[in-house]
Amino acid sequence: MSGSTFGRLFRLTTFGESHGAGLGGVVDGCPAGIPLEEAVVQAALDRRRPGGQQGSAGTTRKEADAVRLLSGVFEGVTTGTPIGFFIANTDQRSRDYGPLASVWRPGHADMTYDAKYGVRDYRGGGRSSGRETAARVAGGAVAAALLAAEGIRIRACTLEIGGIAAPGGPDFDPDGAALRPYCAPDAATAEAWEARMREVRGQGDTLGGLVRVEALGVPAGLGEPVFDKLDALLAHALMSVGAVKGVEVGDGFAAARSLGSVNNDPFLPLPSEAGPHDRPDSLPDPDSGQCFDSSRQSAVQAGAPAPASPGFVMPSNHCGGILGGISTGQTIILTVAIKPIPSIALEQQSVDRQGRGVSLRVGGRHDICAIPRVVPVLEAMTALTLADALLMQRRRRADSSQAAARPQGR
Amino acid sequence: MSGSTFGRLFRLTTFGESHGAGLGGVVDGCPAGIPLEEAVVQAALDRRRPGGQQGSAGTTRKEADAVRLLSGVFEGVTTGTPIGFFIANTDQRSRDYGPLASVWRPGHADMTYDAKYGVRDYRGGGRSSGRETAARVAGGAVAAALLAAEGIRIRACTLEIGGIAAPGGPDFDPDGAALRPYCAPDAATAEAWEARMREVRGQGDTLGGLVRVEALGVPAGLGEPVFDKLDALLAHALMSVGAVKGVEVGDGFAAARSLGSVNNDPFLPLPSEAGPHDRPDSLPDPDSGQCFDSSRQSAVQAGAPAPASPGFVMPSNHCGGILGGISTGQTIILTVAIKPIPSIALEQQSVDRQGRGVSLRVGGRHDICAIPRVVPVLEAMTALTLADALLMQRRRRADSSQAAARPQGR
Amino acid sequence: MSGSTFGRLFRLTTFGESHGAGLGGVVDGCPAGIPLEEAVVQAALDRRRPGGQQGSAGTTRKEADAVRLLSGVFEGVTTGTPIGFFIANTDQRSRDYGPLASVWRPGHADMTYDAKYGVRDYRGGGRSSGRETAARVAGGAVAAALLAAEGIRIRACTLEIGGIAAPGGPDFDPDGAALRPYCAPDAATAEAWEARMREVRGQGDTLGGLVRVEALGVPAGLGEPVFDKLDALLAHALMSVGAVKGVEVGDGFAAARSLGSVNNDPFLPLPSEAGPHDRPDSLPDPDSGQCFDSSRQSAVQAGAPAPASPGFVMPSNHCGGILGGISTGQTIILTVAIKPIPSIALEQQSVDRQGRGVSLRVGGRHDICAIPRVVPVLEAMTALTLADALLMQRRRRADSSQAAARPQGR
Amino acid sequence: MSGSTFGRLFRLTTFGESHGAGLGGVVDGCPAGIPLEEAVVQAALDRRRPGGQQGSAGTTRKEADAVRLLSGVFEGVTTGTPIGFFIANTDQRSRDYGPLASVWRPGHADMTYDAKYGVRDYRGGGRSSGRETAARVAGGAVAAALLAAEGIRIRACTLEIGGIAAPGGPDFDPDGAALRPYCAPDAATAEAWEARMREVRGQGDTLGGLVRVEALGVPAGLGEPVFDKLDALLAHALMSVGAVKGVEVGDGFAAARSLGSVNNDPFLPLPSEAGPHDRPDSLPDPDSGQCFDSSRQSAVQAGAPAPASPGFVMPSNHCGGILGGISTGQTIILTVAIKPIPSIALEQQSVDRQGRGVSLRVGGRHDICAIPRVVPVLEAMTALTLADALLMQRRRRADSSQAAARPQGR
Repeated sequence: MSGSTFGRLFRLTTFGESHGAGLGGVVDGCPAGIPLEEAVVQAALDRRRPGGQQGSAGTTRKEADAVRLLSGVFEGVTTGTPIGFFIANTDQRSRDYGPLASVWRPGHADMTYDAKYGVRDYRGGGRSSGRETAARVAGGAVAAALLAAEGIRIRACTLEIGGIAAPGGPDFDPDGAALRPYCAPDAATAEAWEARMREVRGQGDTLGGLVRVEALGVPAGLGEPVFDKLDALLAHALMSVGAVKGVEVGDGFAAARSLGSVNNDPFLPLPSEAGPHDRPDSLPDPDSGQCFDSSRQSAVQAGAPAPASPGFVMPSNHCGGILGGISTGQTIILTVAIKPIPSIALEQQSVDRQGRGVSLRVGGRHDICAIPRVVPVLEAMTALTLADALLMQRRRRADSSQAAARPQGR
Repeated sequence: MSGSTFGRLFRLTTFGESHGAGLGGVVDGCPAGIPLEEAVVQAALDRRRPGGQQGSAGTTRKEADAVRLLSGVFEGVTTGTPIGFFIANTDQRSRDYGPLASVWRPGHADMTYDAKYGVRDYRGGGRSSGRETAARVAGGAVAAALLAAEGIRIRACTLEIGGIAAPGGPDFDPDGAALRPYCAPDAATAEAWEARMREVRGQGDTLGGLVRVEALGVPAGLGEPVFDKLDALLAHALMSVGAVKGVEVGDGFAAARSLGSVNNDPFLPLPSEAGPHDRPDSLPDPDSGQCFDSSRQSAVQAGAPAPASPGFVMPSNHCGGILGGISTGQTIILTVAIKPIPSIALEQQSVDRQGRGVSLRVGGRHDICAIPRVVPVLEAMTALTLADALLMQRRRRADSSQAAARPQGR
Repeated sequence: MSGSTFGRLFRLTTFGESHGAGLGGVVDGCPAGIPLEEAVVQAALDRRRPGGQQGSAGTTRKEADAVRLLSGVFEGVTTGTPIGFFIANTDQRSRDYGPLASVWRPGHADMTYDAKYGVRDYRGGGRSSGRETAARVAGGAVAAALLAAEGIRIRACTLEIGGIAAPGGPDFDPDGAALRPYCAPDAATAEAWEARMREVRGQGDTLGGLVRVEALGVPAGLGEPVFDKLDALLAHALMSVGAVKGVEVGDGFAAARSLGSVNNDPFLPLPSEAGPHDRPDSLPDPDSGQCFDSSRQSAVQAGAPAPASPGFVMPSNHCGGILGGISTGQTIILTVAIKPIPSIALEQQSVDRQGRGVSLRVGGRHDICAIPRVVPVLEAMTALTLADALLMQRRRRADSSQAAARPQGR
Repeated sequence: MSGSTFGRLFRLTTFGESHGAGLGGVVDGCPAGIPLEEAVVQAALDRRRPGGQQGSAGTTRKEADAVRLLSGVFEGVTTGTPIGFFIANTDQRSRDYGPLASVWRPGHADMTYDAKYGVRDYRGGGRSSGRETAARVAGGAVAAALLAAEGIRIRACTLEIGGIAAPGGPDFDPDGAALRPYCAPDAATAEAWEARMREVRGQGDTLGGLVRVEALGVPAGLGEPVFDKLDALLAHALMSVGAVKGVEVGDGFAAARSLGSVNNDPFLPLPSEAGPHDRPDSLPDPDSGQCFDSSRQSAVQAGAPAPASPGFVMPSNHCGGILGGISTGQTIILTVAIKPIPSIALEQQSVDRQGRGVSLRVGGRHDICAIPRVVPVLEAMTALTLADALLMQRRRRADSSQAAARPQGR
């Protein structure tokens, strides 16, 4: 209710400020019996650290971000009780931020926190700092462990930085993005972004871009009709990340310029004579997310098409894997717009809390582009949303044996 | 939790199917003492009826959509107890829909409802019908009454249909949009859209477009940090409307291609010698939503900048009136992408529940473009979100007299 | 959040006042596929009408309480979408209540509503009227339908009225209580209560009493540790009924005077040589709720003891079927204290809204004792709580096949 | 939703097991600007430690229970962001508990946790241990700080242990209870309980008792009608404490044996000639909680009687300070039944997870009676409930200046 808890059945509650004792959280509602180790959560956190995929976008800060699981795991599995965790702040240097105590940085939450609360922890943005997202990534790692047990995985790659779009085509490799600088879908684009990043750093300015997030292996039936449509929950989740200014599902804004006859994704029968693993080559590769063959869905899906259904094929995915707010069984496709980081080295005009004009340069060790760091956060929010939707669906049918896993092929 | 309730303190719960007894809902948490009459709610519903702003986009159905308030209002004001309402279905013709009982319409929720529930009210889409939104509009009218008492109002206009964008410029008149066909911002664009609509109707196809929603008079301080940022709540609200495939806040996707130095909205002091009503002409018109002068904010705002603040000016509004998930006091600006209506008269390929291929034409009396009808729904969802955020903010400070209304100008 | 919604996954939202248009509600989250007919809900409502079990306790009002289901049921089964319902008020006679508009009736909510809201629908108590509970009974009937499909049923009987306790012993027949006046557990006690009721009616006074509510067939594993213990949820549910002033679980207040060695319920192995249906006569009758044999639990239980468990016996039930906030699989036993009805014909001292002293007699057609009418409400609240807890438990284990139904006997 | 979060606007989420890393929690929704120091929270925790008020009831364990505030407090006041805290476990000795890994202790949650989750942290009860309540006490200390700023305080005293009731009368001193062994209301009773405790300890057995909790200074208007009545929320809160088996409000079970004419609390006008501070001696002492004079209510109350009201007197308090689920402005009075501690040194019959009969003695360092330790927990749960209800009420009226503090005397 007060904004520090996300989810309904799988719930993450977080706390912490960038220059306080640290960041932490509680995952409540995770089912018992999920294998979980501290090292898995740590690995997720390591992905958002400066270095690695950060290229020239990142800062020179060294944040250990060592997470400690405090409860809810016993003898290597979750117990069903809340999983508390904590990440101590180690490299705080709060003296950098003193001069900003009474000045509002443009593009930041300084003014709005003052408006909301009347007081503000001004050290490094306090709770409005991007560092807050470390707790989301830790919680998301628990969600991902639950999803992995159901055959669901999340992947993300950057589509565009500073107006330079990845070309797509045969080199487009989203699965390899996690290993490239800037989570780029191909090596050449990563280099182009690196060059642009160096240029802008020299100007004291910052950049934004676009990121695609996909969820693979999601069973049909997740999401609630009306207010809690799966796309509404995902838009909520992604828009709650500070840098995000827009969210699309499937074709998104391009769908607004399409025709109904083009935008609709048809249903086709499974090829009648061939088995499900012997289908016409003319269909797109099912693993691309563009084609969906319901007969190949995992047996662990929470809500399956009606028993009589012998399977079907969807040869396109304009809808982004969601129809009427409920997952279709296809890959879920989301695109988000990331604004340029507001902390720029250039001089800016602002006022202090007394309304007096000031000019300021935001010093410190800031990033040029949020994208490398924000990608694991977007993945985490997607994982949290889907873990919650998965648990919500485990109670939708009167016949609970029907609601549980069932293979459905021919 | 199950998707038919929206909001935390100001809550709307809805029920009903397109061809059942009717549509209804309960508004719980509306403060006592708000003047409210059935006629006000009826007027909001009348805006989404076929005819009026629908131009050639609408159907020929006649839906009375007569709403009845069932509780919670006594002697002309709200009593603080839940406000029940009901809109009986009168023009159902469910015989039109029988043949679709076992066939999945492309682009609709037929397949996903079957996957989720195993059973489905197939008459006219049941709960997945656009008719469900009538209950949102009724609930939104109650929210708007609360907001009006605080000096907040919502307006929306269409920016683009079928790829034809309104040109903007001096003729751009969002306040008059409610009176023009398609909620167009100027008369010439309405005519261009009308022509396009007739053309596409002749082809048996459908169109989508873009709509801008704005909230004027919103005080600074609404929205919660972290997961329930005001923009996250609004994205959730708008994406929960069936036809919406994308949501932007402020500059949205354009911000992703901007620079930090351009995208940041500076704070400026109030002109030092002039009074707040005598400011330089070089600043944009404050009523345009592009400029914000905190000294002119209404005295009824829920959360005001700290007492010492003598006011400030924001000459641009790239952020869309939200920073760090909290309202700035500027106009809130949202843009949504509406997909083409999936019910097309052209023949489409699909399957039935047994997985057999079928070809179908969706008969009946369907719209060409959702936009005229969806605009009041987008306004309603925005009003519901802001009414809820407003009540949430009324408890943020220890000193409750401080949290209450306070004029703050010079 | 605002008090008109109960439950987390199985949710009832209600609205309506005693002298407004009527009473209604929305059940959201009921799984699809549950057989449900209007007549079943009507039958539950008929149990709380004056007449029948009311004896001399009831009023002479005739309330049809005809319920209409407005959505969420199609072709005889629930569809998973919200179930709206409405009960029109027909016998309102609001002219009886005009004089009480500015006077606070002792023992009623008149003063506190004024304190809370500043305005009040004074006609017959408005939303604070006992008539509000009709919507609970309607919602509870839906919950009971869900529970019935899982082998769970609720029963209630009155233990004491006006200080006259039912003697217990061999004549104690809770299953027949629904057919006796005052829901008495035996015929002789019903007659004693009838005599006491007539006596007090002649004095213009009113009576209270004790009611026992039991839930049979509840599987082990329902309820959440810590804040949402099953007994805490049930206490919340029952205490939310206006007349209730106390709630006990199992031995309740008597447990406070017991010893640990007496109050603990031992676990015993199943008799080793005999089958589960051939056990020693020295154990209490399992159907009494005093003995529990886990090997006889229904196969439909949501959360079963660990697979290795070959069953066990609990020969006593001091705990009332709940340990550590989680159901044991035994009969759940609750006792509630019902206060005397505050509307008495005797003259009372009060004040009006201006603080002036007045003396008043509460006229109208009031009951002498709430118990006959309140029993179906207590049952409904218990059913709503258990339906919700049952759905909550369907997601507690990673292995969903394990979480589903499983027979566990030898 | 999953039981580890309590409250709606003022929310406490907890985590931790008795023999894991420690216990912790997050308070979300606490308004900004409340003075709060770690030492205040520590002092609350110190009250539940062995020693001090424990008399002979307590164990010989030494638990430091040193709490650390991790976020949400800056420069001595709350910032409005979540307050994280952690209490490390230091004296765990988990080797004591190994033999109980596969055996179910009677009266404990061992069996039910196994039924619910399939796995269990068996070390000292894991999350079902009484040690879990340390996090509640820490969170309750934050709530108490908020309440103190509004003039509200909670006090509790023990009424009965092992069947020996405190006599009441002129020596009854609830305000001094916190300083006496067993939170006794007078010194002689403390001695009688001490004697009984020693006796029972010698027998290897344990005791229960009754505790009264009162809230003083609560303004009228708190609590929601229907499902979230203030007494329902309080019953939920108190029944969620492991040892509690019954809850009464006001006269509770005694009200069930009373008459309407006796049980109703009349309203009387303020004495007409005298000022509010010069009233007849015949009225009970207002500070006793038995009499309520609305003209003396604090100016900071959240919801005040209608403006015209010149005050009134309630000379009795059978209702326990709550009418129709809403606070009257009187002292709120609750009584709870505490069961004997299930860990007894006597030999008991049980089974292991394989259903084989075992006999066990629960060794370790256990308490004889939960009461001294549970009293601060009951106070904490009451404080959390009232802090939440107070924030909920700050949004009930359209005119927010009206909703805020207002003196109301003559």
